[in-house]
Amino acid sequence: MNGAEALVRTLLETGVDVCFANPGTSEMHFVAALDRVPGMRCVLGLFEGVVTGAADGYARIAGKPAATLLHLGPGLGNGLANLHNARRAEVPIVNVVGDHASYHLQYDTPLTSDIAGIAATVSHWVHSSAASDELPHDVANAVAAAGEAPGRVATLILPADVSWGECASGPAAAQPLARPRRAHDDAIEACAEALRSGEPAMIVLGGHIRDAEFELGARIAATAGARLAVETFATRLPWGAGTPQCERVTYLAEMAIEQLKNVRRLILVAAREPASFFAYPGVPGRIAHEECEVLVLAEPHQDRVDALERLAGALRLDPVEPPRSEFALPALPDSGALGTAVVGDVIAALLPEHTIVVDEGVTCGMEVFPRTRTARAHQWISQTGGAIGWGLPAAIGAAIAAPDRKVLCLEGDGSAMYTIQALWTMAREQLDVTVVLFANRDYAILQLEYLRVGAAGMGANARSMMHIGTPDIDFVALARSMGVTATRADDAAGFASQFAEAMAARGPRLIEVLMPAFNLG
Amino acid sequence: MNGAEALVRTLLETGVDVCFANPGTSEMHFVAALDRVPGMRCVLGLFEGVVTGAADGYARIAGKPAATLLHLGPGLGNGLANLHNARRAEVPIVNVVGDHASYHLQYDTPLTSDIAGIAATVSHWVHSSAASDELPHDVANAVAAAGEAPGRVATLILPADVSWGECASGPAAAQPLARPRRAHDDAIEACAEALRSGEPAMIVLGGHIRDAEFELGARIAATAGARLAVETFATRLPWGAGTPQCERVTYLAEMAIEQLKNVRRLILVAAREPASFFAYPGVPGRIAHEECEVLVLAEPHQDRVDALERLAGALRLDPVEPPRSEFALPALPDSGALGTAVVGDVIAALLPEHTIVVDEGVTCGMEVFPRTRTARAHQWISQTGGAIGWGLPAAIGAAIAAPDRKVLCLEGDGSAMYTIQALWTMAREQLDVTVVLFANRDYAILQLEYLRVGAAGMGANARSMMHIGTPDIDFVALARSMGVTATRADDAAGFASQFAEAMAARGPRLIEVLMPAFNLG
Repeated sequence: MNGAEALVRTLLETGVDVCFANPGTSEMHFVAALDRVPGMRCVLGLFEGVVTGAADGYARIAGKPAATLLHLGPGLGNGLANLHNARRAEVPIVNVVGDHASYHLQYDTPLTSDIAGIAATVSHWVHSSAASDELPHDVANAVAAAGEAPGRVATLILPADVSWGECASGPAAAQPLARPRRAHDDAIEACAEALRSGEPAMIVLGGHIRDAEFELGARIAATAGARLAVETFATRLPWGAGTPQCERVTYLAEMAIEQLKNVRRLILVAAREPASFFAYPGVPGRIAHEECEVLVLAEPHQDRVDALERLAGALRLDPVEPPRSEFALPALPDSGALGTAVVGDVIAALLPEHTIVVDEGVTCGMEVFPRTRTARAHQWISQTGGAIGWGLPAAIGAAIAAPDRKVLCLEGDGSAMYTIQALWTMAREQLDVTVVLFANRDYAILQLEYLRVGAAGMGANARSMMHIGTPDIDFVALARSMGVTATRADDAAGFASQFAEAMAARGPRLIEVLMPAFNLG
Repeated sequence: MNGAEALVRTLLETGVDVCFANPGTSEMHFVAALDRVPGMRCVLGLFEGVVTGAADGYARIAGKPAATLLHLGPGLGNGLANLHNARRAEVPIVNVVGDHASYHLQYDTPLTSDIAGIAATVSHWVHSSAASDELPHDVANAVAAAGEAPGRVATLILPADVSWGECASGPAAAQPLARPRRAHDDAIEACAEALRSGEPAMIVLGGHIRDAEFELGARIAATAGARLAVETFATRLPWGAGTPQCERVTYLAEMAIEQLKNVRRLILVAAREPASFFAYPGVPGRIAHEECEVLVLAEPHQDRVDALERLAGALRLDPVEPPRSEFALPALPDSGALGTAVVGDVIAALLPEHTIVVDEGVTCGMEVFPRTRTARAHQWISQTGGAIGWGLPAAIGAAIAAPDRKVLCLEGDGSAMYTIQALWTMAREQLDVTVVLFANRDYAILQLEYLRVGAAGMGANARSMMHIGTPDIDFVALARSMGVTATRADDAAGFASQFAEAMAARGPRLIEVLMPAFNLG
């Protein structure tokens, strides 16, 4: 068999059986191998940002990496922003990036580029395969590197001649996954002491928050009388009725500082220390009070369940059952205008159990999360790296990872336009994704940020850079042009009935929700 | 004034008065400065690939750089593919990439990334500005670096605090542009000797081919009895009736090898040595015959007009006037099916004088270039780096650089979908661009390449990775959804009448041309 076939077979051996792809000439032998090797689901994206964002969404739900197939440096470049998001989310992805045949690089032909240099900016692991016989081992290494806790971006560069050359060694077996490291005893003891100190304490959970650590963290907080919070943009979070009650660290630094001002012991569990998303003149970057001691119970790469269990033990207190979110659905509106609150209520009222919510709703979507706290139990995945254009692709990946669950994508109009081609893949694969597309026709978040950074006045030029009407984008026509069923809602009752219909049906669907202009007051 | 204002004023001082932008929070002070400083035209793209591709198209026509405004590493990443194309085309661009405030990097917040590392892969010059007072000088340096012959990508990283900090120094003046270097006497003499040798010779012009060097090259070829060619994908080329007759080095290596097999002296004028675009098993990478001597008259960074003049003098022969393309328009079809030839004929017949043709037509567009050889004089700009998704953005830039000229964008459906958001900017700016969108619903070039690389068979999976129908994309609805007038042609007469109407009208317009499936036979 050739290298490409050994590559695909090794991916399957290691449990990687989904490949999001936008191939080019240098990847044709990989593509050909897909027909000789059964078992690899290959999903085409019309742009590489769709491919990498889908791999991110897939891994967050499947709990294992997908492969991507990308075409040389520019293809990787097109996928870079969503690899950045995946890297920040600590999500496992195995990129396979085709390159020219090794002996062809000397000609410096048009597509020659510094693939390794580009890859290094978003990858924990980069390797260019040097020989067809080494390729299976390289692939197994890449998958193992991606699987390192909590999840890594691994990029394997595949020269065309390595791909088409004969591979005598055959596919390689999966390597044993490295177990996450154990947190230090000192860290456990310091956190236990902080919780016993009587000082106001908060436990912040971050990253990929699984049920086990959510439950443990909540029980410890209840037992110790501490507050429980999740970081602003968690990789994945169980949410809705029955989940432990908790706060979320607020996005706006000014408000987060207020939220945390009384906390004197901040305990981080695979979470970064809260910090302002951007710098603003006169606003501190650090959120925690200057007198607050910040303690790390477990780093993201450490075994957080083990650390929490040891912390619970070290407290030596009778465990207290944590308070949970009740089950309560808001009433559906039968009239009235659209706004962030009513949109949140409609979604909370109608969300099916086990829905995966992919949140890139930005300003318009901000009321949905608090309102689905009492909705049917679901999961929430957030935009982790700040590079917009993630939501639609991530929804593709989530839907492929969980074909029996509804995926709801909350998407801003500005964000949607970065990777709008994703709609086509939703249609081709007939994915059960409902996109709620908030159309306020502005980069509203920028209008807010403009004021926050202290930029003076807002003249016609500045306004023009933040306004994405003129012309208005017709998202219904746009979605239909790519084969996605679409409707438009311009009042609360219309949205409620369209959203109900979407939740009852299967298949890709977009609802353009005409939102009022963002109110800066 | 603050740093941002000094930056904008310095750009204007150096002649940079167009900025393609997709800003974020860290760039808000730049945006604010646009309202305080008159004279900078700022054009919003809904995705950074639109921004960088537009800057490329602009510079090719304007003959000077535009600025881009990009948001941190992911924004730069989204623009990377078209910066790759610009770098390969040796086109001047000044990127301004916002970064977090320098003191904020310590918090490693979500958008923190290795901006300099990403920039280095596509830039000749990268600098992160360290202080507001240094910023004007840094900007002048960036513009000077971009202006270095033949044209460079310069990337200035702009920390937010440098942007909003007080700049006591005020704007800087333009630096004198470095003159292109003089080609070596030895090179001139060697080329003269090669042309006098009596061996079959070919002169290949490359890069940005201006009238002066086209004329000089043609006269030398005619005088010495040599063949004249332009490289496959020139940055810019005068074309149509009245231009010197020449060949174009063929894209397909197998055919180019045949084309050049008799050449024994190959003289390169700012052109790279012809090489196969990709490697194929059993096909040489080098195009020239093994007995052909390859000589460089002038490197791209050298003064090619001067070199050609000196070569003409060194020949010591009576100059012969070169043959020119006659003026001859094909007849318009009044019936029949669509195909590459008839599309080429319609375009050749109706193309207005001075049109700028932006060519990303891939397989469907390949017959247009040979057929407009006798059309009204026009200019041709080509996809130089192989990273598709360049055509629509480049057309934006060309139209902004030349508002009084028609821009014709030849675009494949597959290529179009990489940066389809460009249509919105065409509508917003009401640019006089006609997009001929070839819809064959395949990555047809990949079907061809699949065979060329010797990939075996083509099963359902491989076919699916190259087919972009299922569902078909409705480009008419898609264009209209973003405010662009659009029609669909499904036969030759329909295309002829729609294209005639587009050439007679002004403003953005898209014609979806339903092409037959690519014929591999």
